[in-house]
Amino acid sequence: MGSTASNTDNKTDSTVVSNAVTHADPIASKGFAVDSPTSSFKLFEFERRAPKADDVFIRIHYCGICHTDIHQAKNEWHYSKYPMIPGHEITGVVEQIGSSVKKFRVGDNVGIGCLVDSCLSCNSCKIDLEQHCPDTCYSYNSTELDKVTPTYGGYSNFITVKEHFVCKIPKNLPLDVAAPLLCAGITTYSPLRQHNVGKNTRLGVIGLGGLGHMAVKFGVAMGAHVTVISTSESKRDDAIKLGAKSFVVSKDEEQLKSVKDSFNFILDTVSASHDVAGMISLLKFNGVYCIVGAAPKPLEIPSILFLTKRVIFTGSLIGGMKETQEMLDFCGKHGITCDIEKMVVSPETLQVAYERTLKSDVKYRFVLDMLNSFK
Amino acid sequence: MGSTASNTDNKTDSTVVSNAVTHADPIASKGFAVDSPTSSFKLFEFERRAPKADDVFIRIHYCGICHTDIHQAKNEWHYSKYPMIPGHEITGVVEQIGSSVKKFRVGDNVGIGCLVDSCLSCNSCKIDLEQHCPDTCYSYNSTELDKVTPTYGGYSNFITVKEHFVCKIPKNLPLDVAAPLLCAGITTYSPLRQHNVGKNTRLGVIGLGGLGHMAVKFGVAMGAHVTVISTSESKRDDAIKLGAKSFVVSKDEEQLKSVKDSFNFILDTVSASHDVAGMISLLKFNGVYCIVGAAPKPLEIPSILFLTKRVIFTGSLIGGMKETQEMLDFCGKHGITCDIEKMVVSPETLQVAYERTLKSDVKYRFVLDMLNSFK
Repeated sequence: MGSTASNTDNKTDSTVVSNAVTHADPIASKGFAVDSPTSSFKLFEFERRAPKADDVFIRIHYCGICHTDIHQAKNEWHYSKYPMIPGHEITGVVEQIGSSVKKFRVGDNVGIGCLVDSCLSCNSCKIDLEQHCPDTCYSYNSTELDKVTPTYGGYSNFITVKEHFVCKIPKNLPLDVAAPLLCAGITTYSPLRQHNVGKNTRLGVIGLGGLGHMAVKFGVAMGAHVTVISTSESKRDDAIKLGAKSFVVSKDEEQLKSVKDSFNFILDTVSASHDVAGMISLLKFNGVYCIVGAAPKPLEIPSILFLTKRVIFTGSLIGGMKETQEMLDFCGKHGITCDIEKMVVSPETLQVAYERTLKSDVKYRFVLDMLNSFK
Repeated sequence: MGSTASNTDNKTDSTVVSNAVTHADPIASKGFAVDSPTSSFKLFEFERRAPKADDVFIRIHYCGICHTDIHQAKNEWHYSKYPMIPGHEITGVVEQIGSSVKKFRVGDNVGIGCLVDSCLSCNSCKIDLEQHCPDTCYSYNSTELDKVTPTYGGYSNFITVKEHFVCKIPKNLPLDVAAPLLCAGITTYSPLRQHNVGKNTRLGVIGLGGLGHMAVKFGVAMGAHVTVISTSESKRDDAIKLGAKSFVVSKDEEQLKSVKDSFNFILDTVSASHDVAGMISLLKFNGVYCIVGAAPKPLEIPSILFLTKRVIFTGSLIGGMKETQEMLDFCGKHGITCDIEKMVVSPETLQVAYERTLKSDVKYRFVLDMLNSFK
């Protein structure tokens, strides 16, 4: 379950930190932004706020490319605001801390995911589910709590984030291969934990992409018997290498039949519309089917499946900050990282990365080397 | 929560029993059967088996009319076999018991629901979920375990059933108003129990028909705060009389808005296609939506609801024998019965009852007086 990418962060961290200055004014920052659903990325200059008392100011080292970035950049969900700097799988190093910050010190390896703020007082926030707070501020294509100031994501060189929304990256996890844990990682870890996946679980993972390959790693580390269900026979070898015990091609009726009524839990990581009803039939009686992707069209599910098999259909959305830290600590303990393809950013490389992501032509996440992209 | 029908079974039981004979040969029986999806009911003569060692032979007093009877009689589910005697909400009195029967004595008030046999050895049967046994024998339009001998339902005068599939009717429950408990009762009781409905539950019941009105009674008896959601304003008074704390017309956007995000649990008793997605939005975060009816078309549900609200969608199918007895005992303890309209059976009255059931023109279940229908 090792990473395919190398990392030299342990060497560079101290250099970076020694150059840090103390910012009292807004910090001139750079990023790669799109101006419209059809425009190319271009260099964008903006300001990050100087860290307030409870803020952490971070030099971004890496940022993963999530499929969501593409949906948002292209306004496929119809609420995009421009200019937009995407990116919510961010790792970096602390350069400055506010006066009341307790969890972090300058030089710490840290991660920022999809959330950068929330009210911290509602019923969701109180039970560590900040992602369900009605006032959640997302890392980009969103605003700060003032509902006015736009947020800009991780395709940039710096970010200032409230301490509560910053996670520690365990020392043994290189920052490049850790970056996608902040979204792909927590999105798959959380539902497995919510539904007590463990050594007695026969776990089906639908889709072997950025999310799916993380789900396999987590499922294996939790002791589950993991089967990957994919449209493509070409993923078989990878699935087994990742630790799956078996692999099923979802277009092959015979192979599907062989796993009918067999899973306690299915994690469906596929966002594209697909035959969810057929997949539900692979559950055991009272089994749980959890989606983590939002298919564009409504799901069509025959009600009889719910009656005859008492299956449970549910979904999960990223994870709260407490669980995200728990996930990172779990990764540190089990040596789990994301398999990535790393690239220095330019408008051209971003375009290629987006095109290849859309074709699932990446194993399994592009990670942008932000540290080396503004030199 | 009293019944709208009276009952004189306590007087008639002893008379009936004293006339009982011991059957060693198949017993000449009568029922009302249909011959095809379009034919009218007619008197049908057939034989019930003489009770084997573990059988109970019962004189049927009452049988409820379930919407399922109509679906099956008209072959709307495409697997009907004829001649068919429908009926799976059966109450009656034991006339004879087999040599090994322990639970029952001649003269006992008993009920038979949807199930009359199952393998009793599979994983489902072992955990008291006989309704999910792959070899389940239904009360009608089914076969015995031999997969050959047809089963005939409760629109008849006698029935022979394996002891395991016979329930005791508490003495304080009249047999006419108890009959629909065997399907409408257990179908709604089971999901409320499965999902721990109690005094902290804000329970939404969708539909106020045969099933829905039982769900309201059970929910109230379990201590839940019950809201009825119905297409028809005309059900408001009844809902409140049944114990519901509030009533919402589902076609009124303003009324719906008033209960948005408010329910822990919604029991959807409506079989016709309806706006399930809109109803799901009435759930609180992590709320549970349970269907007990099989809509003819696949459900269409936007996946985003599962992500943003982590709702749980599931279903429930009648109940096992242990839980059915538990439900009947609960009804005995709380004085819960079904509100019914009773009628003596003839081909003509059956036709009227079916037509009125299809129009929801019954409060809330027709119950056939089988004892007085073959004189």
